[in-house]
Amino acid sequence: VTITLQAARGIVERAEAAAAAIGIAVNIAVLDGGGHLKAFARMDDAVLGSIDIALKKAKTSVLFAMDSETVHEFSKPGAPAHGLEATNDVLVTFAGGVPLKDSRGRIIGAIGVSGGAVEQDRAVAVAGALWPDA
Amino acid sequence: VTITLQAARGIVERAEAAAAAIGIAVNIAVLDGGGHLKAFARMDDAVLGSIDIALKKAKTSVLFAMDSETVHEFSKPGAPAHGLEATNDVLVTFAGGVPLKDSRGRIIGAIGVSGGAVEQDRAVAVAGALWPDA
Amino acid sequence: VTITLQAARGIVERAEAAAAAIGIAVNIAVLDGGGHLKAFARMDDAVLGSIDIALKKAKTSVLFAMDSETVHEFSKPGAPAHGLEATNDVLVTFAGGVPLKDSRGRIIGAIGVSGGAVEQDRAVAVAGALWPDA
Amino acid sequence: VTITLQAARGIVERAEAAAAAIGIAVNIAVLDGGGHLKAFARMDDAVLGSIDIALKKAKTSVLFAMDSETVHEFSKPGAPAHGLEATNDVLVTFAGGVPLKDSRGRIIGAIGVSGGAVEQDRAVAVAGALWPDA
Repeated sequence: VTITLQAARGIVERAEAAAAAIGIAVNIAVLDGGGHLKAFARMDDAVLGSIDIALKKAKTSVLFAMDSETVHEFSKPGAPAHGLEATNDVLVTFAGGVPLKDSRGRIIGAIGVSGGAVEQDRAVAVAGALWPDA
Repeated sequence: VTITLQAARGIVERAEAAAAAIGIAVNIAVLDGGGHLKAFARMDDAVLGSIDIALKKAKTSVLFAMDSETVHEFSKPGAPAHGLEATNDVLVTFAGGVPLKDSRGRIIGAIGVSGGAVEQDRAVAVAGALWPDA
Repeated sequence: VTITLQAARGIVERAEAAAAAIGIAVNIAVLDGGGHLKAFARMDDAVLGSIDIALKKAKTSVLFAMDSETVHEFSKPGAPAHGLEATNDVLVTFAGGVPLKDSRGRIIGAIGVSGGAVEQDRAVAVAGALWPDA
Repeated sequence: VTITLQAARGIVERAEAAAAAIGIAVNIAVLDGGGHLKAFARMDDAVLGSIDIALKKAKTSVLFAMDSETVHEFSKPGAPAHGLEATNDVLVTFAGGVPLKDSRGRIIGAIGVSGGAVEQDRAVAVAGALWPDA
């Protein structure tokens, strides 16, 4: 079970529309359930540094099957898995990565969004993840 | 001068149509003139190993301002720049990477295609690069 | 739109003069708008470890289109994008990286300076970035 | 004993003049005797992919105290040290890297040039290395 290009593209386009609606330019990455890149779009004027962040947010979500910021609850200083963010060739543990699930709740990939303020990135990622056929 | 998302998406879609027309599933990467990812799509059933190849073909084309297989003329055993393919964190010097140029002939990015036979990949990349607004 | 070697060299020389004026030896890196190295100079007696820091300060500035220390406001512990400095193959988020802009305000590169005290590095980078033709 | 910035800059400028005289745009890197970057210039229109090559040619020359293409005599297929070029985080073993020596013949660094045809790069590097005070 994994995401189709049609679904991935729909997710990217929903996220892009959500970003445009709030006036920000972001990078949007969609990975499949194995963590491999499926679709990507960088909106014009999005900062170059956020390409890697969008990819790593999506990677973080799919590898741990949770929102990227939830991983921080485990990895932050003093938490049980402190330092976790240095594994897997660097994780990004702030908001903007969201798992994608099929109609039966199985994880089929993740979306990662970066380029706006963190809460904006999260809202855009959530909007993308609502794609009905994902 | 760099490529817009609209142009990059058009290029991806043209390449995808060309691949579908010959019955192959490929990865399609579009980079900007600085070598940064702008748009990407992996068609359903494209092999996972070709994601990295598509990205590196596009990188090779934009870094050397030529088709990826032309770099091989310089880098192959016995050629003047033998071993060149190990630089720049690994180049891919077989066909499927094509530079993108604006109407004045300036390089604004590159497309990389991988997943079919090499000559098929090349034909798909060339089809994508013909996007009129690139 | 990117920086010329003439402009990059002028920026390096202005920074070098500013460093000499306060009696410090620094590394000075100028990157283009895509983050690629354009010009570099290491003043005699600058410590070896600051070569990489100067390069990464400039990279940080061009990737996020802001002074390197401003990135720290987002990435520091407790800030929204905590851990950001581990992305993009390591960022440097203390002062000494400054974006370079053309006369219309578009980013055409960045300067990174390292070798003195952080506030000295920042002053030297700012002096370099004032190059009138940048 | 190592190279001064004044000498490194003179070498870069001599190489740049030699490249301009034959109508090519190259990257010019000067490393010190420890292999650390001392000065660098990318001429306008030099291809992006040759930045890394210029740096690696200079690295190869200083690490083995010989012209970069001479290393190939040891590393080529069938030669005693076949595969050598994969060590030291990738060497470049075609022409364009030349050691720099002081008046007593001691190695004080290296120049690496890339961007033209290999023999052009070599001629430009040799021209740079003739700096009288190096």
